[in-house]
Amino acid sequence: MDSSTLTMETTRQALASGELTPGGLTRTLLTIIEAKNPTLNAFVQTIDPETLADKPYNSQLSLSGVPIAIKDLIDLAGWPTKAGSPKFFGNPPAAKDAAVTEKLKSAGAILLGKTNTHEIALGITGINPHTGPVRNPHDPQRITGGSSSGSAAAVAAGMCIAALGSDTGGSVRIPAALCGVVGLKPTYGRVSTRGVLPLSWNLDHIGPITKTAKDAALLLNVLAGYDPRDPGSINHSTEDYYANITGGVAGWRVALAAGEYIDESDAEILAALNQAAELLKALGATVTPVEIVRLRECAAANGTMVIADAAAFHRDRLAEHPDWFGEDVRTRLEKGRAVTSTEYALARRTQQEMKHYFSLFFEEYDLLLLPTTATSAAKIEGLDSATFAPKMTRFTAPFNLTGLPALSLPLGKTPAGMPLGIQLVSEAWGEAKLLRAAYALEQANRSK
Amino acid sequence: MDSSTLTMETTRQALASGELTPGGLTRTLLTIIEAKNPTLNAFVQTIDPETLADKPYNSQLSLSGVPIAIKDLIDLAGWPTKAGSPKFFGNPPAAKDAAVTEKLKSAGAILLGKTNTHEIALGITGINPHTGPVRNPHDPQRITGGSSSGSAAAVAAGMCIAALGSDTGGSVRIPAALCGVVGLKPTYGRVSTRGVLPLSWNLDHIGPITKTAKDAALLLNVLAGYDPRDPGSINHSTEDYYANITGGVAGWRVALAAGEYIDESDAEILAALNQAAELLKALGATVTPVEIVRLRECAAANGTMVIADAAAFHRDRLAEHPDWFGEDVRTRLEKGRAVTSTEYALARRTQQEMKHYFSLFFEEYDLLLLPTTATSAAKIEGLDSATFAPKMTRFTAPFNLTGLPALSLPLGKTPAGMPLGIQLVSEAWGEAKLLRAAYALEQANRSK
Repeated sequence: MDSSTLTMETTRQALASGELTPGGLTRTLLTIIEAKNPTLNAFVQTIDPETLADKPYNSQLSLSGVPIAIKDLIDLAGWPTKAGSPKFFGNPPAAKDAAVTEKLKSAGAILLGKTNTHEIALGITGINPHTGPVRNPHDPQRITGGSSSGSAAAVAAGMCIAALGSDTGGSVRIPAALCGVVGLKPTYGRVSTRGVLPLSWNLDHIGPITKTAKDAALLLNVLAGYDPRDPGSINHSTEDYYANITGGVAGWRVALAAGEYIDESDAEILAALNQAAELLKALGATVTPVEIVRLRECAAANGTMVIADAAAFHRDRLAEHPDWFGEDVRTRLEKGRAVTSTEYALARRTQQEMKHYFSLFFEEYDLLLLPTTATSAAKIEGLDSATFAPKMTRFTAPFNLTGLPALSLPLGKTPAGMPLGIQLVSEAWGEAKLLRAAYALEQANRSK
Repeated sequence: MDSSTLTMETTRQALASGELTPGGLTRTLLTIIEAKNPTLNAFVQTIDPETLADKPYNSQLSLSGVPIAIKDLIDLAGWPTKAGSPKFFGNPPAAKDAAVTEKLKSAGAILLGKTNTHEIALGITGINPHTGPVRNPHDPQRITGGSSSGSAAAVAAGMCIAALGSDTGGSVRIPAALCGVVGLKPTYGRVSTRGVLPLSWNLDHIGPITKTAKDAALLLNVLAGYDPRDPGSINHSTEDYYANITGGVAGWRVALAAGEYIDESDAEILAALNQAAELLKALGATVTPVEIVRLRECAAANGTMVIADAAAFHRDRLAEHPDWFGEDVRTRLEKGRAVTSTEYALARRTQQEMKHYFSLFFEEYDLLLLPTTATSAAKIEGLDSATFAPKMTRFTAPFNLTGLPALSLPLGKTPAGMPLGIQLVSEAWGEAKLLRAAYALEQANRSK
């Protein structure tokens, strides 16, 4: 079995036909993890295979027997949640499941293990001083991106069928792009964050990392929905994202992000972006180059809020044990603590204005197409995070700030063989559109 | 003509029948203003009667010929907007109408004049060091409350038929309660704030100050609606608040705020609250005493955000000309500037949690009944604003924080003859409920 090509969809079929069994598949994946994890450092904990004995396949459950990994920021009852910061967290083990863990379990998924993360999710390199760096399956000398580093690496390396990440400035989409998989950040409030260690209460999102758009739809079907126990959850209708994914994009009005700010990206990323635009045109969409205003300011406002919110959440730990944080994260938390309320209030006003801007924007367009990141996976050795990080978050963070759904789709590679990602964005609650466009692009790209 | 009993409703009837004319009524009111304003200090500018010549009554317009005053924080093209801070503001005069001014004009209202306010709306006493204090029509030695001081005084004194105020921590409801009139703060985003000097972008609301619930409904009919040019405006359906006001409250589930925090109010305010509860019971509602959690924390979080947001908006003026602010306001702005982002982020989290709390609360109740203020209008002389202000905002500010619609209804008086107000709160977008309950209470109280 080549687990690297096994999607949720094909896994479900193989489980339904009896070609695979939940226990057998899980044991196979654990063997793969055992082989690859010493290099990739994607998993921090895995399931005990002994617990699998009584997990028969159940055709009534949409994810029955599908092994899924979750970022180690998400609670799984009985397991420590270390959040990439073992000095602070994980003791005692989580008493309860996070909302998304409950949902995965109810859908029959096998919780295969917990994946490594940038320390407390505050960073996008995946270079964790406590656990060592997570390494890119396409070149272990390179980063995965982060902060959902282990989740993206695990999916890309065939160590699990799909995974969950969290995204506060791009932490699902960035590692998805750098590892060549699909990453979806849903609309703010769409997926409960109850039981997930907060980074920013107003910018945190949980989303799937998968091999295909269809898999992202399958997972979103399970994850989406109002949670009355999560103050950030919003009561909005959901739909069957999987059933509606094949409708195509004929007649869609697509905005292609253009202008100087976009053009600062690597040439190969711009080429991928244009390739996506051409594919969408060929599929019957109208593509219009549009300069999006204030993107730079959006990313800056998001950055200000993330560090300020994180410093607020971690205030006691930061005051009492600053040395227990890695230098990278401690420095950012200290910067966050020094943010003034004037800076915060102005960032919040930018947030309000840009939510408004995009609500009008998406009256005119069905979809916005832009790069996920401005460059591809860098080498771990000698990486200067301070100059590199802004190239990762500049296009992703605006959609944390505005809460809009955004999806990173792999499209092409660099000459060095590193994956590239393009980003699709739609109106609030428009995940079905993103998934439909992503699926159409995947199919068109495959049949080229 | 006794203008103090003239409501919008009776004014419309008298204008429709020809008993009154727009010009005649306006001239009468200007005469009353001329007589009373030297004492009350409610108006800072009034209309030039010469401009009235060509304003015939038009039965097609809902407010045709109805003289309405607006707080001097709201732009009226060609007029200075001084915001109670004449050293900074009003030069040049406003180039455009505020959104609500446009709406009043389109509905045929006569913009009678602009009313005095606590300096930059940052305070609730109405004691303005630049213009002198606004005085309560029920006892000119006493405050009106604020910050929409002049609007409430003008309505209560029969100097105008109705008025607009703004409310960031209670600034419509507090002076309405202290002056014995109706004050409605709609749901956040319901009424555009475009063209109104901001105090806090995330807590500012515009609302009517009127003599009756029906008048508040008539004005809300004109004011409510999405404004694509206001980033704070929310696209939500409106209804005919006036047509639906008479439905009564039979079968409603009313929560009566109870507990120690409520009981710290003046005995006569608690008596008014219980009177309202008894009236609602007699009208067929079920009234349940309920302790609302974290109200104190809500008021504190709102207070933190108001001063921090105000300091952010006024940052350049505060840096360059601190001495141009009155001491009271300058001190509060300086406190706002010193708020840390950690304090701000924690206040914002309280905001998110309490919005959520009330969204669940209003699944169980149609209405929440609580005091508007914890005490009645104090004497101007010797007032200690620092201890007095929290008694004004403790019950109002939580509904700026949460954005919920809230209405202050006059009910009874103190032995000294000062009005008392009770506050009705409902779910987001539930203004129709508030107005219906307020109307039912008015009628029941009148017929007792």
